[in-house]
Amino acid sequence: MGIVSGDWVESRIRVRYGETDQMGHAYYANYLFWFEVARGDWCRAHGFTYTSLEEKGLFLPVVEAWVRYKGEIRYDQEITIRVRVAEFKRASIKFEYEVTRDGTNGVLTQGYTWHVLMNRDRKATSIPDWLQAHMTTTAERDSADGA
Amino acid sequence: MGIVSGDWVESRIRVRYGETDQMGHAYYANYLFWFEVARGDWCRAHGFTYTSLEEKGLFLPVVEAWVRYKGEIRYDQEITIRVRVAEFKRASIKFEYEVTRDGTNGVLTQGYTWHVLMNRDRKATSIPDWLQAHMTTTAERDSADGA
Amino acid sequence: MGIVSGDWVESRIRVRYGETDQMGHAYYANYLFWFEVARGDWCRAHGFTYTSLEEKGLFLPVVEAWVRYKGEIRYDQEITIRVRVAEFKRASIKFEYEVTRDGTNGVLTQGYTWHVLMNRDRKATSIPDWLQAHMTTTAERDSADGA
Amino acid sequence: MGIVSGDWVESRIRVRYGETDQMGHAYYANYLFWFEVARGDWCRAHGFTYTSLEEKGLFLPVVEAWVRYKGEIRYDQEITIRVRVAEFKRASIKFEYEVTRDGTNGVLTQGYTWHVLMNRDRKATSIPDWLQAHMTTTAERDSADGA
Repeated sequence: MGIVSGDWVESRIRVRYGETDQMGHAYYANYLFWFEVARGDWCRAHGFTYTSLEEKGLFLPVVEAWVRYKGEIRYDQEITIRVRVAEFKRASIKFEYEVTRDGTNGVLTQGYTWHVLMNRDRKATSIPDWLQAHMTTTAERDSADGA
Repeated sequence: MGIVSGDWVESRIRVRYGETDQMGHAYYANYLFWFEVARGDWCRAHGFTYTSLEEKGLFLPVVEAWVRYKGEIRYDQEITIRVRVAEFKRASIKFEYEVTRDGTNGVLTQGYTWHVLMNRDRKATSIPDWLQAHMTTTAERDSADGA
Repeated sequence: MGIVSGDWVESRIRVRYGETDQMGHAYYANYLFWFEVARGDWCRAHGFTYTSLEEKGLFLPVVEAWVRYKGEIRYDQEITIRVRVAEFKRASIKFEYEVTRDGTNGVLTQGYTWHVLMNRDRKATSIPDWLQAHMTTTAERDSADGA
Repeated sequence: MGIVSGDWVESRIRVRYGETDQMGHAYYANYLFWFEVARGDWCRAHGFTYTSLEEKGLFLPVVEAWVRYKGEIRYDQEITIRVRVAEFKRASIKFEYEVTRDGTNGVLTQGYTWHVLMNRDRKATSIPDWLQAHMTTTAERDSADGA
């Protein structure tokens, strides 16, 4: 339990035409879809899938989301979404996100999401040890490098 | 079983900003969301809800969809989606759709969807009599007018 | 410039099937679409449309969004989204939102969005007097009641 | 002008959680987003981008879409979308699509879309020679292999 600085896991996404709006850039709700893709990749980088979590009867619904849109993101651009665990409590986890793009300086978008771990009865449940271990250790693909 | 000309049921929808794309009109996939809204209203007009169908263990997944985009639809425009049952078989139903807009002539969009009635085991199942009756009779809100 | 307590404007939305996810309730990104619908209705209640703003070369992109998901929202449920201006600065506006549902107590979802007023050159621009006036006065449909 | 059998270009997509619905599989409208991703990749495989087309003042709005959903597609599954040009006329192009998944037999989804080439005035315009050439030749990544 506490503040952690888990490793960043990176996802690459190309912006879809249907994700733009008439202002000519990506519509603000679509970033939350991208954050979800990044969380899925974070799980995979740590040796499990979100699907396997649900198969065990565990769910991670979002209870809070925050996004700061600093730079525009447009159709067909390839962006990188970095995600890491920033904090966790007995039954909840905070992920944080940074969106960048090759050829641009700085972070285009920042965000975080808080999740509660729920069981099949939709009750909050303690984060199991194995999942807690994943949050405080380095992702597998990094450890493969000897990190 | 056969070709029917069920009554049209109308839904009103206002186009969302997030439904537009950078070309400045509604993105083509979003029409299928609107068709779904129309189907939900069709159920309600016939005295039941799609939710009640699922609670009985019956599902109506789409197995085929077709859309003909004839006129542009833009942000904040109020459109009318008309839906009716056009045909049905032992375990499948075809809905057809027309999208119009006040102040414009003709139909802006046409479409149809074919659905198979499935049970909890994801097997096709015969359309029950009560549902079949709904497809061949007039919607309740019309009959309330003495139609 | 300052903290305001603008009047609440209400929108009614029925949750679409395509807005749910396999967890069985509305996917977290879709709330941001609903907030946008509410902002459009807020404009209309104040005697203008967001489209008319864009026609004047003014845009209100979102620069920050926050959502607190407290209760589940499910398919076909009719929800009410209340929106009001909470604060504004020279070139930016904060809207806040509350989502409720008939038959349930309390607020199911809270949120806010910060917007910057931009001109055609994508530069921040001062909120014109007429728009500022709208933010501090009561919505038209209320004033029609003599409020 | 005529029926062509252009080469297939393949895209890989992983299904997002937000693309599922409460029935537990991908919502039917989302396939049209995937087809669009495949079209973007088709352009890239032929040495241009759809963005470059729009920069030339040419647009390819969809005027007709058809999808046949034969097998379920679920969260986190990696699917392959194959796209090719099937037919073209003076100012219109038909793409066809097949969705498959590793470890399953056969095509899970089939579809086509018809597009009209439009200029900035939203008038249909003849397909330029260079674009027509792309439709009848093999994609670059194949020709790089000496095909």
